[in-house]
Amino acid sequence: MDPWSPENPSGFIDLGTAENHLLFDLLEPKLTASRVITAEDVHYQDSAGSPSFRAALAPFLSRLWRAEVDPADLVVLAGTGVALETLAFALCEPGDGIVVPAPYFSGMDALAGRPRARIIPAPLDPATGFALTAEAVEQAILQNQNVRAVALLSPNNPLGHLYDESTLRAVAEVTAAHGLHLIADEIYAGSVHTGEFVSTARVAPSDRLHVTWGFSKDFGLSGYRVGVLHTRNRQVREAVLQQSRLANPSSDTQALLRDLLLDTAWTQHFQAEARTRLRAAYDQTTSALEAAGIPYLPAPAGLFLYLNLSAHAPTFEAEAALIQRLRTDAQVNLAAGAGFHTAAPGYYRLCLATDAAAVGQAIERLATLLG
Amino acid sequence: MDPWSPENPSGFIDLGTAENHLLFDLLEPKLTASRVITAEDVHYQDSAGSPSFRAALAPFLSRLWRAEVDPADLVVLAGTGVALETLAFALCEPGDGIVVPAPYFSGMDALAGRPRARIIPAPLDPATGFALTAEAVEQAILQNQNVRAVALLSPNNPLGHLYDESTLRAVAEVTAAHGLHLIADEIYAGSVHTGEFVSTARVAPSDRLHVTWGFSKDFGLSGYRVGVLHTRNRQVREAVLQQSRLANPSSDTQALLRDLLLDTAWTQHFQAEARTRLRAAYDQTTSALEAAGIPYLPAPAGLFLYLNLSAHAPTFEAEAALIQRLRTDAQVNLAAGAGFHTAAPGYYRLCLATDAAAVGQAIERLATLLG
Repeated sequence: MDPWSPENPSGFIDLGTAENHLLFDLLEPKLTASRVITAEDVHYQDSAGSPSFRAALAPFLSRLWRAEVDPADLVVLAGTGVALETLAFALCEPGDGIVVPAPYFSGMDALAGRPRARIIPAPLDPATGFALTAEAVEQAILQNQNVRAVALLSPNNPLGHLYDESTLRAVAEVTAAHGLHLIADEIYAGSVHTGEFVSTARVAPSDRLHVTWGFSKDFGLSGYRVGVLHTRNRQVREAVLQQSRLANPSSDTQALLRDLLLDTAWTQHFQAEARTRLRAAYDQTTSALEAAGIPYLPAPAGLFLYLNLSAHAPTFEAEAALIQRLRTDAQVNLAAGAGFHTAAPGYYRLCLATDAAAVGQAIERLATLLG
Repeated sequence: MDPWSPENPSGFIDLGTAENHLLFDLLEPKLTASRVITAEDVHYQDSAGSPSFRAALAPFLSRLWRAEVDPADLVVLAGTGVALETLAFALCEPGDGIVVPAPYFSGMDALAGRPRARIIPAPLDPATGFALTAEAVEQAILQNQNVRAVALLSPNNPLGHLYDESTLRAVAEVTAAHGLHLIADEIYAGSVHTGEFVSTARVAPSDRLHVTWGFSKDFGLSGYRVGVLHTRNRQVREAVLQQSRLANPSSDTQALLRDLLLDTAWTQHFQAEARTRLRAAYDQTTSALEAAGIPYLPAPAGLFLYLNLSAHAPTFEAEAALIQRLRTDAQVNLAAGAGFHTAAPGYYRLCLATDAAAVGQAIERLATLLG
């Protein structure tokens, strides 16, 4: 690998991984400072996460979700993916199904892998820009056996869609009508640059709703492996806690993030600045795409947007061939739509929360390749 | 809970959890100091763990095991338990068996839970002080179907036994003769206060040997959730890496422990001092037990020893009743032998790596209770 840098402008540009590279200078003073670590911090923690960390998380999530959050309803886990996997183990027997509107983040398949659950894509219509509908969710429920849950990515990955109150309510109602659990992965709740995030926890509270969030995306700390599960369901909570000795995050990092959140003035400034920077990155990216004549789907949230290159890649074979040429000839990596179980070929996720010059350069190379 | 402290001498004394409480003052300057954290450190790491951390771990483990360790054979995971669980997923289909000489650390059952593997205890003979024999292992292999692996806890938990070269070789030979994998959990490798630890990695290297270690016991950092798997088996490594996005330790903590290990003078002083302190705790504990006339099995390693109270608790019912009385009447917690699948009743694990006054007080209360 010969990665792009301002000094190596012909290097490889990887826009395939959803990470936020815009925040490190803001975080650095917090992450590198000396720490308050006590003897208690280094030993086994409460299986739901250290009480002081959960006490700091609750008001933070409460502001993020505009919903009341009780620390007793939180379980801190070693990443949002881990939280989702423990939920799959808690809710599903091997072979049980989880309906997920598609396109969806490919990692969801892995989350169901060890629990041996089945992810059932509910295909959304490309003609509507993959708009989420309760009807699509219900159809997938009706067409399959042993469905246990519906999982939403809200905001969506890879689409960057925000869901409004009525859409979330409709999906929650269909889910409840079939006696299923609703999982809402809200890991991008704070990565919204246009409009307002609406939490499922606010509009559809229920003891069959389980919401996840984490520090990987909104704080750009994907390596720190800290996620959180919110559930009011005692049985599900118990089933998750039974797994948590194998799913706890580092108490070292719990102490760091607790102290960071307790500095609410800093946290609120950080969140506002993160939104401003993400908006700037989105605007620069979409301007460059428009200048190059490359079509994309508007994305008010997320660290990415979805390019529609179906004119150049009208089949899944052509989609795969184009991504290969992009990598080898243009030295650019994107994530192809097939990996997200997209119902139509020719879509590519472009991650934009990184150096604007790199994104601009990648778009130029893509435009050249497309001719 | 009303925990014991020097100021609260009648409080509850929990000697049931295997943690090392003797080391925090040594570690504190390292754990609380300002840190070098770069933008690279906060993002997703190599799925085997950060290369710089593995490069620091290899010479450390090499000294601990007196065996060559290649960083390319290491996978860093979120705790030794997580490492064992990923191994169980990698090696076993649901229903497959893993033979474990008993008594064994009860957590092993949990490690097999999500992979749906079966732990098959190979009962060791109380008359020999539960001495490990290859014959006991082979008998369990022969008496069961679909056995995939043998797992050793070396040094043993709860016994605190060290295994010598010929015992380890004999077990490795039996395992190999039946075409099985050998898992050696060496998490207490550095918690040896009497005699020399012998690593399975040194005496029985093989591409069917998988060795685990972690920072929880020898460094007293159970909350930090950092373990490591050593395997030369490319297929097993791949199967573990496929799970590692859901099993990675915090990159924040990886960076901390990397820098700690790179200070080899500090690390070697720390290890020597840890051994000295553990030896002192063991000597004080055994002196108090002898003075009180409470029988125990000698334990050259581990953070605990095994009490033999079979004269007071000749049945498993009596064993359970005694632990209850100990908790309620004497305000002392130990771990009863049934939880370790001990072949005979009346054994209790007492964790000694904590405040000597607390251990002394607990032994006094136990002696009073036993009358």
